[in-house]
Amino acid sequence: MTDTSGPQLGRRNFLGAATLGTGAALVGLGTGGAALAAAGSPAPQVDFPDDPRAFAGGPPGTNNRAEIDLYDCEVEGQLPLDLDGMFYRVGPDPQYPKPEQYKGDIMFDGEGHVSAFRIKNGHVDYRTRYAKTQRWKAQHDARRSLFGMYRNPLTDDPSVKGLSRGTANTQLFLHHGKLLVFKEDSPPVYLDPLTLETKDDYYTFGGKLDSQTHTAHPKIDPLTGEYIAFGYEADGLLSKSVVVFSADRHGAVNWHTKVQVPYAGMMHDFVVTQKHVILYLTNMVSDMDRIKAGGVHFSYDSRAPVYIGVLRRGGDGKDLRWFTGQNLFCTHSMGGWSDGDKIVMDWDGGEGNQFPFFPSLHEPFDPVKGTGYLRRFTIDLSSKSNDRFQVETIYPEVSGVLARQDDRFHTLKYRYGYLNGVGPKGGWWIVDHQEKTTQLVSVPDYMLSEMTFVPRKKDAPEGDGYLIGIGSSMKEAGRSDLILIDTKDVAAGPVARVKMPFKCVGQVHGFWGDASDIPGADLA
Amino acid sequence: MTDTSGPQLGRRNFLGAATLGTGAALVGLGTGGAALAAAGSPAPQVDFPDDPRAFAGGPPGTNNRAEIDLYDCEVEGQLPLDLDGMFYRVGPDPQYPKPEQYKGDIMFDGEGHVSAFRIKNGHVDYRTRYAKTQRWKAQHDARRSLFGMYRNPLTDDPSVKGLSRGTANTQLFLHHGKLLVFKEDSPPVYLDPLTLETKDDYYTFGGKLDSQTHTAHPKIDPLTGEYIAFGYEADGLLSKSVVVFSADRHGAVNWHTKVQVPYAGMMHDFVVTQKHVILYLTNMVSDMDRIKAGGVHFSYDSRAPVYIGVLRRGGDGKDLRWFTGQNLFCTHSMGGWSDGDKIVMDWDGGEGNQFPFFPSLHEPFDPVKGTGYLRRFTIDLSSKSNDRFQVETIYPEVSGVLARQDDRFHTLKYRYGYLNGVGPKGGWWIVDHQEKTTQLVSVPDYMLSEMTFVPRKKDAPEGDGYLIGIGSSMKEAGRSDLILIDTKDVAAGPVARVKMPFKCVGQVHGFWGDASDIPGADLA
Repeated sequence: MTDTSGPQLGRRNFLGAATLGTGAALVGLGTGGAALAAAGSPAPQVDFPDDPRAFAGGPPGTNNRAEIDLYDCEVEGQLPLDLDGMFYRVGPDPQYPKPEQYKGDIMFDGEGHVSAFRIKNGHVDYRTRYAKTQRWKAQHDARRSLFGMYRNPLTDDPSVKGLSRGTANTQLFLHHGKLLVFKEDSPPVYLDPLTLETKDDYYTFGGKLDSQTHTAHPKIDPLTGEYIAFGYEADGLLSKSVVVFSADRHGAVNWHTKVQVPYAGMMHDFVVTQKHVILYLTNMVSDMDRIKAGGVHFSYDSRAPVYIGVLRRGGDGKDLRWFTGQNLFCTHSMGGWSDGDKIVMDWDGGEGNQFPFFPSLHEPFDPVKGTGYLRRFTIDLSSKSNDRFQVETIYPEVSGVLARQDDRFHTLKYRYGYLNGVGPKGGWWIVDHQEKTTQLVSVPDYMLSEMTFVPRKKDAPEGDGYLIGIGSSMKEAGRSDLILIDTKDVAAGPVARVKMPFKCVGQVHGFWGDASDIPGADLA
Repeated sequence: MTDTSGPQLGRRNFLGAATLGTGAALVGLGTGGAALAAAGSPAPQVDFPDDPRAFAGGPPGTNNRAEIDLYDCEVEGQLPLDLDGMFYRVGPDPQYPKPEQYKGDIMFDGEGHVSAFRIKNGHVDYRTRYAKTQRWKAQHDARRSLFGMYRNPLTDDPSVKGLSRGTANTQLFLHHGKLLVFKEDSPPVYLDPLTLETKDDYYTFGGKLDSQTHTAHPKIDPLTGEYIAFGYEADGLLSKSVVVFSADRHGAVNWHTKVQVPYAGMMHDFVVTQKHVILYLTNMVSDMDRIKAGGVHFSYDSRAPVYIGVLRRGGDGKDLRWFTGQNLFCTHSMGGWSDGDKIVMDWDGGEGNQFPFFPSLHEPFDPVKGTGYLRRFTIDLSSKSNDRFQVETIYPEVSGVLARQDDRFHTLKYRYGYLNGVGPKGGWWIVDHQEKTTQLVSVPDYMLSEMTFVPRKKDAPEGDGYLIGIGSSMKEAGRSDLILIDTKDVAAGPVARVKMPFKCVGQVHGFWGDASDIPGADLA
């Protein structure tokens, strides 16, 4: 096994403003001295390592770990008075320092800290709460870390056996009145979408989800309001089972099937069209040797083939077909649709490992190969014997990570996509597949976290609205502004900035919730 | 009337670390542009003035206005494992910017924000909450400022007529299981001492307090557990009525009397001995002309005599005697006791106005005359015809403000006092009246807010314990440490520091509550 390697960049960089690319953005090289006794002894004083590369509570000046209510934030510019909803964010925020033997754990193992901006009538209320996972609660009560390495249950304190290891730290979705917070190794955690109070630390859609896991990237079918999701390693550690399911707009599970994948490996995102579900099995393989040795869950295996699996929505899964092709390591899908017998879908992906904090089995980490580009996949289902997918790189000027779209166009042929631009210019790309144009959104002196699309009105045309996200002021030690940019006049710069008095807790992904989808929002 | 004047120092300096003296520490010269519409119109966007001298929400990097829970803070050094209690702080934290016509309001008119450090087993949990005063709630609901100038009800929005103007922003006390938060223009606000939830926004000791006001500096009789307090302008704006009362250890009022003072003026603190209550009427006079003109409540009148009033505890108040002498402007008492027919008491005070933000009627503000020294007063009650008090300056090397003592020695002859040292050296003075020695407590590169005495154990000898308080790191843009210094080894420096990841909300005063006095603390 190789050691973790890669650029020595810490959580500060990644979570404060993700403009460095998935690959370079996060390492978990701990060199701090947090020593932690066993669970039976008194909890030691809390002392996070000072090393910014370590699994840690964040640099001074941040509001990491602090649960905050800031009512009526200061606003500059003009917030649209008819904007009425909540902007949600979530990211890992280590609750406790790790014991010495696990100090090299990665930041993606931090406990999920949710933040929300309630926007209405030009006023903004800010609130953050940890997702009160089973893990969070056990550690809170013990006042120490009890869970060891990233997705490695063999490293846990015996006292937590049987508890969910889920951290709820990756993404969140509003559906059937619930704020569901995701970590792909566990079922969602259900939070009240207004108060952020945790209502269910292990949400299984009324017991209907027969999976130990659930993706961080479900989709919503805008025509039916259905929620479609999957879970990999569904039957436990390194299981090849994948559950795929959907729930109607009220959260009732109306489809549930279980399929098998060629090997256990990372399946971070997927694509849903009006007809099909498309699974993407990356060659970031689940590695039992590493797990048994007390390491993290994954190793990058460049020699393992990447598989794309296609199955009919609503079917029993027996129609699942696997396709291979160029061995791209893709992380996030931008969008996809069915076009007759063809499936077209766009992902951001690199030719090699995008996650340097997961070791590569056969070669050193290569940041060039890890650089993400927009990849358009075409899968032809017309021939039963064809098992190859086609892929091309679109917009070669655009490199980046964290692909998103106007979420109202999941499953449909879509026009607009958004991508975190990496490289010297930074910023966020808006791509227009109809006009085949790209433009870069940037704010001088600010680094931008994931920019989430907000429709101008709930029924506005595709892409007509705002990009919303946290900007970190490079001139003010990372102090945060919530920035709102009009997609129809990007050049004008932000139409409004919510001036936070501090550096907000970091994030991975964000989600916009319209007030009409939030129970009680009309009163708040 | 003269304009407000004095050094151009802002809230940042005063509340972050009060080492500049009461006089120089706070001005309310607003020059920002917060424009606020009347209450009937939609609440405008929130925009505090950028000018740090203005009535404002604090500079970037602070956690002003944010209500926070930070569980298990980081600790350096070694917190004594048997230290079990809560350190409470409170200070003004403007909830909303003022409308243009009141932008010159003073920072002492900011809404009270309470913070608390729960310390137990070497772990520290931090929590802050606004005191939910009637004023706070009205403004919260309206999303704007509704109360005008400092202690001037004529400047209020008509919609708040009849509501308490109290801000609960000055000091807090734990008594009969309640955290009582004070502003001297109004009755206490009662907060749950663990959760900081506001339980009563107008606490009148079960309806027994017949006063519209209550001092920010009550005393506790350590022999009986009684709580002794007073309220000036007790019957309304500029009334000469002063209520003096006591309550037993269960909060039941067991003495209540009303007396009249020679004129309406500031009476910030007082002294209680085992026999007497001593009132101190300063020549910071309540000024109806200024109030009618839309200004603040007070003017400094160097020509008005300072009065010291003495009345028997438990009496009907008819024995009240007034004494005059040197016209010192005293703000805080350090301690006092009865010695036969004599009363001895120590205050910090200056020869002139200590509050430059309250205008002087007859001369410009003089920072030299405003400088505070420790003044020992002696009042001889043996002669019925004597109406003069004697006063001497003790420890002339010691100048400062915010005098405190070991609170367990209120009413008794005491040995140790504490004082915020002003001048180039800064820090906190410990004075030992028995040995007649003084020593200065300072922490390199930190400015210290009020340091509060914490007994080593509940029954430790006088002065044996710790000084606790917030230090603002001058090298880290004011980031806060909660600092604990052993009074028996000051030279060793802090025994522990709670490393806050941010700049904590500011304070005026603090209070230590032993866990045994906090209902439910054994479970928290």
